[in-house]
Amino acid sequence: MTRVAVAQLWIDIDDPAGTRQGLVEAVAEAAASGAEVVVLPELATSGYVFVDVAEANARAEPLTGDTVSLYRELSLRHDVIVVAGFNERSHGERPYNSLVVVEAGEVLACYRKTHLWGTEKLVFTPGRERAPVVDTRVGRIGAMICYDLEFPEMVRDVALRGAQLVVAPSNWPAVRAVAGERPPEVTKAQASAAVNRVFVLVADRVGPERGVDWIGGSLVADPDGYLVDALTLGEPAVRVVDLDLDLALDKSAGAYNDVMSDRRPELYG
Amino acid sequence: MTRVAVAQLWIDIDDPAGTRQGLVEAVAEAAASGAEVVVLPELATSGYVFVDVAEANARAEPLTGDTVSLYRELSLRHDVIVVAGFNERSHGERPYNSLVVVEAGEVLACYRKTHLWGTEKLVFTPGRERAPVVDTRVGRIGAMICYDLEFPEMVRDVALRGAQLVVAPSNWPAVRAVAGERPPEVTKAQASAAVNRVFVLVADRVGPERGVDWIGGSLVADPDGYLVDALTLGEPAVRVVDLDLDLALDKSAGAYNDVMSDRRPELYG
Repeated sequence: MTRVAVAQLWIDIDDPAGTRQGLVEAVAEAAASGAEVVVLPELATSGYVFVDVAEANARAEPLTGDTVSLYRELSLRHDVIVVAGFNERSHGERPYNSLVVVEAGEVLACYRKTHLWGTEKLVFTPGRERAPVVDTRVGRIGAMICYDLEFPEMVRDVALRGAQLVVAPSNWPAVRAVAGERPPEVTKAQASAAVNRVFVLVADRVGPERGVDWIGGSLVADPDGYLVDALTLGEPAVRVVDLDLDLALDKSAGAYNDVMSDRRPELYG
Repeated sequence: MTRVAVAQLWIDIDDPAGTRQGLVEAVAEAAASGAEVVVLPELATSGYVFVDVAEANARAEPLTGDTVSLYRELSLRHDVIVVAGFNERSHGERPYNSLVVVEAGEVLACYRKTHLWGTEKLVFTPGRERAPVVDTRVGRIGAMICYDLEFPEMVRDVALRGAQLVVAPSNWPAVRAVAGERPPEVTKAQASAAVNRVFVLVADRVGPERGVDWIGGSLVADPDGYLVDALTLGEPAVRVVDLDLDLALDKSAGAYNDVMSDRRPELYG
């Protein structure tokens, strides 16, 4: 079993020091609970609601900057794999909405969000590379960011490359809520877990920020598509779950089916 | 608005006359409720749990046989579009698990299930053609069968070809149930509706048959992925819903996004 933590952080773009402090404490709490992997939200140190490109650029950092250095240090200090988002400086006009996968103080992968949501299109440059699938000491981790997860092709692609755990640092803005129903983002994450027989983990954020509210819908779904755990909507929290990631190596569905080899790619247009 | 009926039939492979009678009554009930489209289950006249290939073949019918003739007659008599499954005779060793889309007494499309589930692999020939997208008087209907719907590529394909309503005649065998949770099949259908911004309709069946139980999980999901209606699990029923199929022509998600043009096919492997 692999103990995995999801940290649903309180993030405030107008309080970077407090945001950073909360992040540091969350990783420490996860590690103290025995987590080997800690997943943090999208843009976990910067916040999300940038006024414009100028502000997004002013707060962007290179891969060698403070945020990724912090993730590396936390990974070393607590002996955990850290997956977390950051606002990455680019050589172009706009920064990237990126994440890193860090193990033993080393950056194993840096991924730049390829499907930009809402006003992200006004302040970020979309990535041009596929989502990474990273070999770690606990197994293969596929990583993408927030809206990426709503493209089934994207999850299929990392699953076909062997991802056992698909993680998605996210900032899910609260849109229309329907009483008694899970947000559609949650349903999509569950379905993506099930159709690929992988674990899917979303680390969402909370904290109203410049007028935007967030679902706070962090979750872990198992290869059957059921929620292993779902954090209380809207509350900041660190939660650990024990996952048998080997289950995601088995794509069989009953005695006669396999969700991967049953595919008929020649019929999908 | 288009009034659409889903008929969750009681089907019994060992009572073909009773099964047929229930089907005829269900279509009449739907039409009396003002339905313009009636969707019936997979293998709606034959039943599902064939002992072997010989039995499946013995009960198979050509497109000109009794079952499709009945669907055509019901379509004419009640002035409804009928989508329903049947056991189709093939020129090969095993029959097809097929459906037809019938309007005004004419067969607009015949589709042969391409993703076979469980022991279907022992008694049916998999289809070799893409799922159809059919222009009807109410709009464009995409059609597939049961397990097909669990392949997001398949639903994406019909949605990209303009399907507004994706219908899936089904026989969902009851597997593991988790208290308080929807069956994963339901979650997958909801997610497929949401990621493609289409309506998804599943017509499931009930009635224990040779030791197999069925979910009876018929549903209609809207382009946000919410259930417009879900039939009571396990109960036979005809339900009508009014759907604004034009909503499925609009793929926008907020002011900056479009779930189709946001795709990055070059990054999906």
